[in-house]
Amino acid sequence: MASRFPRRRPPVELPRLKPRDTAIQATRVDLHEVMPDLLPYLGQAAYLQLEAFQSLSRVVGQVDDLAAKERISAAAGASLSKHHGIVAEIRRRGDDPSEVMKPFADEIDGFSALTTGSDWRETLLAVLVTSGLLDDFFIRLASGLPGDVGPRIASLLGSDGGQDGIVEVLQNEIGADPKLASRLAMWGRRLVGDTLLVARSALHLSGNPAADEERIEPIFTELIAAHTRRMDALGLTA
Amino acid sequence: MASRFPRRRPPVELPRLKPRDTAIQATRVDLHEVMPDLLPYLGQAAYLQLEAFQSLSRVVGQVDDLAAKERISAAAGASLSKHHGIVAEIRRRGDDPSEVMKPFADEIDGFSALTTGSDWRETLLAVLVTSGLLDDFFIRLASGLPGDVGPRIASLLGSDGGQDGIVEVLQNEIGADPKLASRLAMWGRRLVGDTLLVARSALHLSGNPAADEERIEPIFTELIAAHTRRMDALGLTA
Repeated sequence: MASRFPRRRPPVELPRLKPRDTAIQATRVDLHEVMPDLLPYLGQAAYLQLEAFQSLSRVVGQVDDLAAKERISAAAGASLSKHHGIVAEIRRRGDDPSEVMKPFADEIDGFSALTTGSDWRETLLAVLVTSGLLDDFFIRLASGLPGDVGPRIASLLGSDGGQDGIVEVLQNEIGADPKLASRLAMWGRRLVGDTLLVARSALHLSGNPAADEERIEPIFTELIAAHTRRMDALGLTA
Repeated sequence: MASRFPRRRPPVELPRLKPRDTAIQATRVDLHEVMPDLLPYLGQAAYLQLEAFQSLSRVVGQVDDLAAKERISAAAGASLSKHHGIVAEIRRRGDDPSEVMKPFADEIDGFSALTTGSDWRETLLAVLVTSGLLDDFFIRLASGLPGDVGPRIASLLGSDGGQDGIVEVLQNEIGADPKLASRLAMWGRRLVGDTLLVARSALHLSGNPAADEERIEPIFTELIAAHTRRMDALGLTA
């Protein structure tokens, strides 16, 4: 996809510890103009992982089946590891993680309330969908970070988050309850809009809607394509 | 302390990845007679760590202060790692972790309900107190396990569980609310009895109460001494 904006740096191929079938195709869009500063980026990314950890932990407590508990707790542990990895980056810079995360706490707590489903299956799908979109988004932004922190964060966010286990649990549930598929498909569609708003809130927008859309649109198109593949893997229509 | 029972193996000094001030003095008591079989031992120990993880995760969601969230989430992650480490031992033996844990699920879920406090401070103290007692207990039993699994499990259970962070959070809370100390001290005393019942349920008892008490009493005396030191560290009377 062509861009009107001059590229200031070559496109970065980000390391992925474990290739996912949702891997993003690199599109040539200059993110420099909309790139958040490093600390807000880290603060928001860290708090999002903490929130994913909390949601998954809640689901662990709501699920009776021990094999499902295992899989979901592994995913919770992965989110927590990512959270602590980003917190370690903040500390490495001499900053206080609590202070750096604080500006995002209210917004993300509100987002978490919106993405808590009417039962644990919906909440579990919500974590899969929202973390999938937001991890991809923050990996994409990481190439615009200064110094060597970008590749480290991209590698951390791209590492195995236990998604396969979540997909298995949801596939079992959908297999056992045919009505669940349409409910989850609808729920999945509802989640995308709110998630993209969170992503958008991370960016420095110019206030010129046409110019902003032109920068953001290709990224969001990619994110949604990866989202559609994730829903397909569950047999759900995105 | 003398024992009427012949010792079948020399006392084992268990490795501790990080010495704690609550380290248990080795007392010469033969555990062989009361030792649980390996799989039930692993199943109960694994499920207890999962329960500690769930309780701590719930507290993470109830705490507003982000620095406290950090500390408690680190402790939750440590319990989860211990859980997954024990689950890996079960898998290594070709057994299904869910099946091995299942017989303990109801009892431990009930125990968890009993140790959920009227606010997050009580729940946090409960995890510190009950995990402290039970980790010490299972470390103690590990020396009676067959093969090389005992030292591995003892090392895993004795590894840093984020207790220092929990103690700091509780000390801050106690410092900010002078009435809290007496409430938590009373709560801590209530927890000990239920926790020792869980420990006791792990043992093969002979049905001869006098003989059983003679075997168990020295171990429980040590566990309570370590518990008293933990309460002291919080400025609470055990």
